[in-house]
Amino acid sequence: MNSLAALQQLFQKEIDQLNLGEHPNKLYDPMHYIMGLGGKRLRPILALMGAGIYGEASKALPQAMAIELFHNFSLIHDDIMDEAPLRRGKTTVHKKWDQNVGILSGDGMLVKAYQYVAQCDAAILPEVLATFSQTAIEVCEGQQMDMDFETMDQVELATYIQMIQFKTSVLLGCSMKVGALVGGAPSADAQALYDFALLLGTSFQIKDDFLDVYGDPEKFGKQVGGDILSNKKTLLWIEAQSRAAQQGVDFTSYAAMPANEEKVSSFQKLYRELGVDTFAKEQIDHYFNQSLEALAKVDVAEEKLQPLREFAHWLYSRES
Amino acid sequence: MNSLAALQQLFQKEIDQLNLGEHPNKLYDPMHYIMGLGGKRLRPILALMGAGIYGEASKALPQAMAIELFHNFSLIHDDIMDEAPLRRGKTTVHKKWDQNVGILSGDGMLVKAYQYVAQCDAAILPEVLATFSQTAIEVCEGQQMDMDFETMDQVELATYIQMIQFKTSVLLGCSMKVGALVGGAPSADAQALYDFALLLGTSFQIKDDFLDVYGDPEKFGKQVGGDILSNKKTLLWIEAQSRAAQQGVDFTSYAAMPANEEKVSSFQKLYRELGVDTFAKEQIDHYFNQSLEALAKVDVAEEKLQPLREFAHWLYSRES
Repeated sequence: MNSLAALQQLFQKEIDQLNLGEHPNKLYDPMHYIMGLGGKRLRPILALMGAGIYGEASKALPQAMAIELFHNFSLIHDDIMDEAPLRRGKTTVHKKWDQNVGILSGDGMLVKAYQYVAQCDAAILPEVLATFSQTAIEVCEGQQMDMDFETMDQVELATYIQMIQFKTSVLLGCSMKVGALVGGAPSADAQALYDFALLLGTSFQIKDDFLDVYGDPEKFGKQVGGDILSNKKTLLWIEAQSRAAQQGVDFTSYAAMPANEEKVSSFQKLYRELGVDTFAKEQIDHYFNQSLEALAKVDVAEEKLQPLREFAHWLYSRES
Repeated sequence: MNSLAALQQLFQKEIDQLNLGEHPNKLYDPMHYIMGLGGKRLRPILALMGAGIYGEASKALPQAMAIELFHNFSLIHDDIMDEAPLRRGKTTVHKKWDQNVGILSGDGMLVKAYQYVAQCDAAILPEVLATFSQTAIEVCEGQQMDMDFETMDQVELATYIQMIQFKTSVLLGCSMKVGALVGGAPSADAQALYDFALLLGTSFQIKDDFLDVYGDPEKFGKQVGGDILSNKKTLLWIEAQSRAAQQGVDFTSYAAMPANEEKVSSFQKLYRELGVDTFAKEQIDHYFNQSLEALAKVDVAEEKLQPLREFAHWLYSRES
């Protein structure tokens, strides 16, 4: 079994050699640009680990690339929708080129993702493809739900969890499952691995909400309090709004505060008073523990799962 | 073998029953909206005809739907890129909702297209999928080439032909080939049928350029001269520019004319003087004849191909 660093290196080599096409330049240059911006490469690593349980991790390299292509396609289009100027500290595609280039090169990347994901044995192609497409449509649904939330006064916690799962976690689940299938996993194993990554991803995403409020500014990488300043409906926000209503706290006046540092510290304090910080930590742990339970259902020798367990703990203890 | 009208009816029934999803509304409503706007349904009909040569046309209904979904996905995104307010006389998706809805529901339709195209026997799935993806990426390339042409001073005729083939004709070829494969066609037949539809589509697209200049305003459906008014690089424009340079005619001053009726009539006259009207008609015939030659290579009983021949002649003689 390969170490995390070895898998990262294996995948990086593929990225370095990536040639999706050349002409027209404006279609292909943005694809190579965003694929080269880096990132944690969590999804490809999960795909490679999935295959690695059953055989050579490298067998899932095309699928790892497919999922990274899909992820980056969604980033290009999300950045247009959010009018984001920066991605991983670099200019976004639609700012570096223009919006039309962003739309079209994103479309092309989605097609390329399908070309890569299909590079597997014909026997498993139907299941690989069904998993990938189901995930892809859920990611679209999650993105629309997220945009819908912006104009809603209140969001149910369960709906919020579904949104983050669709927008982010299902793709982690898909990476794991598709990698495992390509490696030769039986369907039941592949599904347990899907659940593992889905639940781990859910924990990871709630941690993201938590770190936005209580993260160490030197480690977090993003501006701490960014979600608070933009009144973003995170898990902490949603739960605080609900608890505030029960306890007669005027949440609306907090939300109406001007976007400055005082707002951030007021929310940090409010969340503590309402116990929402503890609630968030409990939810992070809840989904993390559930993910390990799902992992335990995978029917292979214990030591085969050790790298995944390490990966999970690495992700759990992240501070950025 | 089913008549054209019967196939149109068969497909319309599928459209009437189409349920791609419901929530979130803003993701799925635009998909059903644009799919309901009508159109000639050329692509689904070709897919059904392809299957109909070898068995039941209805066997290719999922693939016919896949290709119509893909076509409409590309229309939504193209309309955003072109800032078009109308599509088939109705408000475009990004105008009826907003741009973000257009981007995302388009993305979702592309995924849905893959879900539909994959609904075939596992044995042919790899070839069906490869054909579909190759076509999809070519359509993206064609769209980018088309946008690139806008800022170019000159375009080679061969490059122009490649652009219209990528942007439009390959999807007709794909419809025909995928339908045929699903129906049980051998690979060589499927390829000949692809060529038939690709070449027919090329003829059709040049006819479009021709009708924009010389169409009957009462039949054409669009504004005659629209391409001239927007200085669009059509086959007639490109060939005229080239011939004008050879004959010392100042083409630039024609192009610089203000966009009014006089410009249209001046170009109609210029094209005639340069013989570009005749050239266009020759090209239409050239590709039409080539398409029939490709059709003749399909190794089935003559009468099985009769509906395709009729379809080709119907398309050839269209005036809108």
